[in-house]
Amino acid sequence: MPKVVDRDERRRRIAGALLRVVARDGIEEVSVRTVAAEAGISPGAVQKYFPAKEELLEFAFEMTGEIMVQRWEAVEPEGSLADVLLQFVHASLPLDEQARAELAIIYAFSARAATRPHWQARIRADYAVARELTTDLVRRGQDEGVIRTDVEAEQLTEDVLMMVDGYGPRMLHAESDADRARLRDSLDLAFDRLVRPPFD
Amino acid sequence: MPKVVDRDERRRRIAGALLRVVARDGIEEVSVRTVAAEAGISPGAVQKYFPAKEELLEFAFEMTGEIMVQRWEAVEPEGSLADVLLQFVHASLPLDEQARAELAIIYAFSARAATRPHWQARIRADYAVARELTTDLVRRGQDEGVIRTDVEAEQLTEDVLMMVDGYGPRMLHAESDADRARLRDSLDLAFDRLVRPPFD
Repeated sequence: MPKVVDRDERRRRIAGALLRVVARDGIEEVSVRTVAAEAGISPGAVQKYFPAKEELLEFAFEMTGEIMVQRWEAVEPEGSLADVLLQFVHASLPLDEQARAELAIIYAFSARAATRPHWQARIRADYAVARELTTDLVRRGQDEGVIRTDVEAEQLTEDVLMMVDGYGPRMLHAESDADRARLRDSLDLAFDRLVRPPFD
Repeated sequence: MPKVVDRDERRRRIAGALLRVVARDGIEEVSVRTVAAEAGISPGAVQKYFPAKEELLEFAFEMTGEIMVQRWEAVEPEGSLADVLLQFVHASLPLDEQARAELAIIYAFSARAATRPHWQARIRADYAVARELTTDLVRRGQDEGVIRTDVEAEQLTEDVLMMVDGYGPRMLHAESDADRARLRDSLDLAFDRLVRPPFD
């Protein structure tokens, strides 16, 4: 009797292999052949699930949105809601090796999206989710008095999203952990000035 | 008598064709064949100057640093030094179609750099130039009283670099010019709060 293989599980395993190829060698090295080798299966087995490289890339791209969500879910929030917000910002940044590999993947797909309108639509949808989660935290922090109220929640949300995207590339390309720590300190100072209640 | 061809000029023409391929189709579509077709020459002529695709990509990558410098040089500064600084920030952002094509190129190379340490070194060098130019403007703006002095010039410089990198991707992937204009307004508000002297 043939073994029952969960089709979705098999697809995810192949896409996971693709993401490892992107993180290690770059998106230009992705092919049915390299992904099959990474997954330890035959090119034909890859093509059974993804007839062309484009479909394989698209499925893996859809999985990148999940990467950030998993990272957020791993945060164990503590402190005031302003501190919690900052912890989510830190969790979104390439401060450890695993997060750097993930961000390299996200950047590769983001660059590719620039020439593909339907990919851009998905990126906008991911931003919309991040914006919604952030606005919710900001509003609750404003209610508790730990986030400034003289700036609207929508603008503070933009500020927080800016910090994540603004420090990401430099942290990714930083020379050392010390440089990354310096950048994180700098981000924390910007966070204080932008988000926390000002001294009166 | 054979026509004298300026070797460097020919190399730049080929690399320019490569950048157009990246902007239009993505970095994955770069090959000696596609670049030759874009440049209107034979694959052999490309290989005469760049024996392998990797060398071609590396030369084009080195040219991306010049793209931003050319954009900055086109700025005709007016207003206070704080306004001038904001004009340089706007000039660094994908607010028109040409700038979007350029940023898509820069992102593609930046993503590729994540897996290539010597490329990362070049990106750090480009950041160092941007940091130096920005710090100079910030210090002069502080001397003139149009940029806040209660935060050190180095931190204000980080804030400005953060704004550029922070708004770039969302502007690139924005759905419409109206959305880009909204993001620019949001950036201007963040700029005011971070960089200009606070009301007392």
